Amino acid sequence: MRPRLARLAELKESKKLDAFFLTHPPTLRHLSGYYFNFETGPSPFHLLPGALFVVPGVESHLVVADTEGSQLGDVDPEMHVIMYLSYIYEQALEPEKHLLNRVFQALDEVIPNKARVGVEANSMPLTLSEGLHHRYSELEFVDVSRELELSRMVKDPDEIAAIRRATRLCDIGQEAVQKYARPRLSELELFTLVRGEVEALAEKRVPILADLVSGQRAHETGGSPSPKRIEDGDVIISDLAPWLDGYWADTCNTTVVGEPTSSQKESFQRVKEALDIGLNALKPGVRANEVDRLMREHIAKSGGGYPHHSGHGVGVIYHEEPRIVPYNEIQLVPNMVIALEPAVYPEDYGLRLEHLVRVTPNGCEVLSQFSHSLGT
Amino acid sequence: MRPRLARLAELKESKKLDAFFLTHPPTLRHLSGYYFNFETGPSPFHLLPGALFVVPGVESHLVVADTEGSQLGDVDPEMHVIMYLSYIYEQALEPEKHLLNRVFQALDEVIPNKARVGVEANSMPLTLSEGLHHRYSELEFVDVSRELELSRMVKDPDEIAAIRRATRLCDIGQEAVQKYARPRLSELELFTLVRGEVEALAEKRVPILADLVSGQRAHETGGSPSPKRIEDGDVIISDLAPWLDGYWADTCNTTVVGEPTSSQKESFQRVKEALDIGLNALKPGVRANEVDRLMREHIAKSGGGYPHHSGHGVGVIYHEEPRIVPYNEIQLVPNMVIALEPAVYPEDYGLRLEHLVRVTPNGCEVLSQFSHSLGT
Repeated sequence: MRPRLARLAELKESKKLDAFFLTHPPTLRHLSGYYFNFETGPSPFHLLPGALFVVPGVESHLVVADTEGSQLGDVDPEMHVIMYLSYIYEQALEPEKHLLNRVFQALDEVIPNKARVGVEANSMPLTLSEGLHHRYSELEFVDVSRELELSRMVKDPDEIAAIRRATRLCDIGQEAVQKYARPRLSELELFTLVRGEVEALAEKRVPILADLVSGQRAHETGGSPSPKRIEDGDVIISDLAPWLDGYWADTCNTTVVGEPTSSQKESFQRVKEALDIGLNALKPGVRANEVDRLMREHIAKSGGGYPHHSGHGVGVIYHEEPRIVPYNEIQLVPNMVIALEPAVYPEDYGLRLEHLVRVTPNGCEVLSQFSHSLGT
Repeated sequence: MRPRLARLAELKESKKLDAFFLTHPPTLRHLSGYYFNFETGPSPFHLLPGALFVVPGVESHLVVADTEGSQLGDVDPEMHVIMYLSYIYEQALEPEKHLLNRVFQALDEVIPNKARVGVEANSMPLTLSEGLHHRYSELEFVDVSRELELSRMVKDPDEIAAIRRATRLCDIGQEAVQKYARPRLSELELFTLVRGEVEALAEKRVPILADLVSGQRAHETGGSPSPKRIEDGDVIISDLAPWLDGYWADTCNTTVVGEPTSSQKESFQRVKEALDIGLNALKPGVRANEVDRLMREHIAKSGGGYPHHSGHGVGVIYHEEPRIVPYNEIQLVPNMVIALEPAVYPEDYGLRLEHLVRVTPNGCEVLSQFSHSLGT
C-alpha cells in the first residue's frame, strides 16, 4: 500500500471513522490519481469535479461524470471507477438522480445506517450530503480537511517524481524569461514567449500561476503580466508555478534588463544569502517558524523585509502546509516539498528569489535546476 | 431594478421562499457582478469561491475572502460586501468560524428561525449548509439551480455588452488562426500565437476554452492543441471560447492550409448553408429543437452528420440553456445569446462553423464579426 493510503487507514482509526467521502479536487489527485483540467472553470457537463469513497483496506470508489472518462489515465488501477450519465445531446438526463443511485449501489454494501464518515466540509456539496443523509438515517459527517492537509505534506515517491517533472517546466520558464526579456517588450508579450516554451516542453497546454511584473510594479510583490512595456533598467520578478498532470512546482527569479545598479546588486546578494540560509536550515526536526525566522532576520539586517511568508509546501496545491511563517511550529520531516522565497522590496523595485526543494534525511535537495542571476 | 433581479423576486414568490443563499460562481457574476480568475484552480487562500445572500427587494450580501478584495471592481454598488479573514502570514486564523460569524451577523436580522432558502445544491458546501442549520433551527433548503439556469438565458443590456467585448476576442483569434497557420508549425505553436493576439487585445491574461486540431485530429470533433505539426492540405478546426471579466463568447472556423480539395469545398458550402438556415430560423417563439432539426436535416441531405448539439446558450457559462438539441422544447425569446455550430466529419477530416448571435424581437443579430472562410 502506498504510504499515503496507510496514513488514511490510521486516520480512520484515530477518528473512529467507518469511511471517507472526499470531494476536494486536490485530494482526488492525491489519493486516487484522478485529475482534470480546471483552466476553464467548473464544467457545465458534470455536477461535481468528482468524489472519492474510501473504506481503507476494503475498497475505494472514484465517482466521475461519464464525460470525464478520457481523463482516467493516471487513476490507481485498484480504484473502482463509477461513472454517472451527465450529458448527451440526444435526450434530457437526470444526472443528480443517476449520480446518487450509482453512489448508493456502491455504498449500500459497506455502509451501515449508523456510520461516521470523514468528509471535506468546504467542498462537500448539499446534493451529496443531503442525498446520503436521506439514504442512511444515522450518518455522521466528520470534517477531516485539516488532517488530510497535514497528511499531504509528506510526498510519496510517485509524487516527488511528478513534482520533478513540473519543476523542469519552471526551469525552462525561468531560462526563457532571461532569454527573451528586452526593452519595449510588454510583460504580456514576454509571458506569451515564456509560456510558449513551457508548453512546448510539456507538449500540451499548462496552467501557470504567474507573477510577471517589471519596474515599479515589482515593488508591489507580484501581479499578472500586463501591457506595461519593459524599460531599460527595469527589474522583472518572474514567479512561475506551472501545473503538470495534477502536481505544481514553484520558483522565482529576478532579472534586471540592462546594467544592474549597485543597490540591485546588493539586494540580490542579500536575498541570495537569505535563501542559502533557509536552504541550509531545512532538515528533519527543524520547525517551520525557525526557518522563517532565520531568513527574515537576515533580510532585516539591511533594513529590508518582505510582507509575505518565507515559503510554503507544494504538491497537489500550489500553496500548502508546511507554511514557512512566523507562527508555524510544524517540524519538518523527509519528503516534504517546500518552496522558499525571501525578498526585498525597496522603494522603486522588488527582488525575490525562490527555489523548490525536497527535505532529505540529512538536509534538503534543491529540485529546481536553473540558477538565480540578474543577468539577461 | 435590473430585469434579472426582478426575475429573482418572482422566483422568491413562486417558490414561496424567504431568501436565497447562492454559491455557484457563474451565479455570483450574474447576480452580484463578482468574478474571479479560476485559471489556476481553487484558491488555497479562501474557503469558498464566494457566496451571495439575497432577500429580493430588501438586501443583498456578497461574502468573499479578504484576499479577494481587489476583485470587486464590477460588483453592483448596492451590494453589501462581507469579507472574512482568510489568510495572513503573521498568525493562524480560523476562517470557517470567521466566515460563519460574518454571515450570521448579516442574516440574524432578516432570517426567521423557520425559513425557506433557495440554494444551489451542487455548490452549497457542508460548511455553510451545516453552519446555517445549527444557527437557524428550522431552515429548509430548496434547490433552485434549474430555475436560475432558465432565468439566466435572457441577458440584460450590461450582459450583452460584456458578451460583445468577449466576442471581439473571438474575432481577433479567428483572424490570427488564418494569419499564422502554415505547414510545419505545431498546433501548440499556432495556439501560442493566437492566444498572444487575444491577450494583447484584452490587455491581460484570458482563459480560453479551445479546440485546435488539424488533419486527422479534426475528424474527432475537437481537442486541445497538441505538438502535432500542421501539414500542407490539413484542415484546422479552431473553436475558441474566451472568457473576459466573467462572460464567455464562442465561435468556430475551419481553415485549410494550402489548396482545399473539392470535398472540403463542398463540405464548407454545406455547413455554411446549415448555419445560415439556423441563423434564419432563430427568432422569438421558435423552439430550440426546431432550430436543431432544420440544421441537422440539411447536413443529413448530403449523408453527413455531427455527433453533438447544434448549439447552446452562452453567458456566464460557456455552454448553457437554451441547448439547441433534439429534445429541447424551450421557445426562444429576445436577448438570448446563442452559438450555432453545425459540422460534418468525413473520414479524414472535420469541418465546423460557429457564429454567436443575439435573439432580437424579429430575428437575430450576429455578434461575431469575422467571416467564415477556408482560406489562409
